[in-house]
Amino acid sequence: MIHRLPPGTRDVLPAEMRELRALSDRLRASFDGAGYGEVWTPSVEYEDTLRRGDERAARAGAYRLFDEHGRVLVLRSDMTVSIARLVATRYGGVRPPVRLCYFAHSHRAVERGRGHAREFLQGGIELIGPDAPEGDAEVVALVLGALEQAGLRRHRIGIGDGSLVRELLGELEVPHERRSALLEHLSRRDLVALEFDAEAIGLSPAARELLVTVPSLRGGPEVLDRAGGPVARAVEGLRELYELLAERDAAERVILDLGLVRELGYYTGAVLEVYDPAVGYALGGGGRYDELLGRFGTPLAACGIALDLQRVHAAQAAEERLL
Amino acid sequence: MIHRLPPGTRDVLPAEMRELRALSDRLRASFDGAGYGEVWTPSVEYEDTLRRGDERAARAGAYRLFDEHGRVLVLRSDMTVSIARLVATRYGGVRPPVRLCYFAHSHRAVERGRGHAREFLQGGIELIGPDAPEGDAEVVALVLGALEQAGLRRHRIGIGDGSLVRELLGELEVPHERRSALLEHLSRRDLVALEFDAEAIGLSPAARELLVTVPSLRGGPEVLDRAGGPVARAVEGLRELYELLAERDAAERVILDLGLVRELGYYTGAVLEVYDPAVGYALGGGGRYDELLGRFGTPLAACGIALDLQRVHAAQAAEERLL
Repeated sequence: MIHRLPPGTRDVLPAEMRELRALSDRLRASFDGAGYGEVWTPSVEYEDTLRRGDERAARAGAYRLFDEHGRVLVLRSDMTVSIARLVATRYGGVRPPVRLCYFAHSHRAVERGRGHAREFLQGGIELIGPDAPEGDAEVVALVLGALEQAGLRRHRIGIGDGSLVRELLGELEVPHERRSALLEHLSRRDLVALEFDAEAIGLSPAARELLVTVPSLRGGPEVLDRAGGPVARAVEGLRELYELLAERDAAERVILDLGLVRELGYYTGAVLEVYDPAVGYALGGGGRYDELLGRFGTPLAACGIALDLQRVHAAQAAEERLL
Repeated sequence: MIHRLPPGTRDVLPAEMRELRALSDRLRASFDGAGYGEVWTPSVEYEDTLRRGDERAARAGAYRLFDEHGRVLVLRSDMTVSIARLVATRYGGVRPPVRLCYFAHSHRAVERGRGHAREFLQGGIELIGPDAPEGDAEVVALVLGALEQAGLRRHRIGIGDGSLVRELLGELEVPHERRSALLEHLSRRDLVALEFDAEAIGLSPAARELLVTVPSLRGGPEVLDRAGGPVARAVEGLRELYELLAERDAAERVILDLGLVRELGYYTGAVLEVYDPAVGYALGGGGRYDELLGRFGTPLAACGIALDLQRVHAAQAAEERLL
């Protein structure tokens, strides 16, 4: 007798569960030690609420349902929008910074047949109040340190700028209707498609060069010297953040990546992605979202990162096999 | 700007969250120490799966949704049916007993306007393999001890028998179509409605007396001496369980309750409800379900209890106020 599970979901048995709990506990201890208090938000939210935060976050929900009044609910796909709602609702009179963390399952729609998880356990932090680059540096350094405390040795963080590509497209006067395909190709790092896009748009050879070159710059602080012009402001921001991280002895884990594009639309500054060379996928990501809280009536700067704990756990195991 | 939450759900802020984590950690340590390994099952299950376990458990789901093939999914309302499915699927070759525990949110439909939680955090155990009364005694004693380790001092457990009332109704030849109303009145302990039912059915005065008296027997082992006849088998089972609990020094917390009826239909023997006199509602419940695993193709006896952790937490706080 076979009892199927919904696609993208799985049972976790005691041996693995014990390790996931140990991982969560260690990360929580690091977050707590830095003053990040844990919160819980409901597993279901009104779609209207998620849409107020970000149209894409609302669409990313794997599962839609209805309440008894016919209002559309979504199984949350991300904690950041819910925490923005919570801060606006419950921390109205609190002087920032507000430091929060969470450990909870989310559900995200994934393409069929890809074998990706739809239900995944996230652990993450949100720092509300501090501006870039200080706030970003605190978030990045805390996550890197927490992963080290949890036993990872080879992890890295990719840092890009969510406004850089938008600024570049604006400076190059790329028509708005062309931008979403271009961003899609950038996020897949499909340079061939990018060159094709650039030609189709009729960009000048210099502009084409810029569009393909800038997003492929990736490495240490030296890559910042090779970008400028239309993206000078974003590059300057990355340089300041890198210097703060160097002061916190975190620079050796940083990969500056001018082509880093995150899917969700609410990022306004630094965008972040956590890697481990032992596995071939990102362990988590996040960034700065200075406009999201304002959409809930409480304009405050903010930055956060979410880790996929099953992926972090897999990276731990893969690192151990490599030892 | 007000951002409403779905009815019956709530945010949990750091001060409360820290206490809920501490409570879960202490309970988990007790369960783990007794050999109960923690498992996780998906938040969503196919409605067919839940219905195979128990029609009422499937109906209790607060939220129904559809996958891309149009199959109906339910946000789980209870972990027991999911764990029965998991044991049948993943522990087929394992020699019982299997001892499992869980800490997870479930969602249950509640009447509108009652202010009850729809999303609630449960922690519980399932003991698969051992028969009554030994298995029941292990489960009851472990939960009582775990609550004591977690800091409760006044908690009690009500123990009834899920088959007692059914046997009584059978012996009294109550027509089947009358039984669900009668069970409903019994579960609400509405003696006036019960007497009215008995009269409407046309039971003899002796039978009416039995129907009202037996389910109102509640207290120490002396109440067992006052029941017999048609319910002798169930009473004998309760006596054996009570004696085992007395050997484990747990008898002082036990309230034998011949009128205890649990909502879900899968209980076949002992039914259990956890109380604390400091608060006016049950902290959790469970019982023996010897037929549930067989419905998933793995016939095994089983017994379990689930605690509502927010209610246990409220009871801790209420006990402290009473000190």
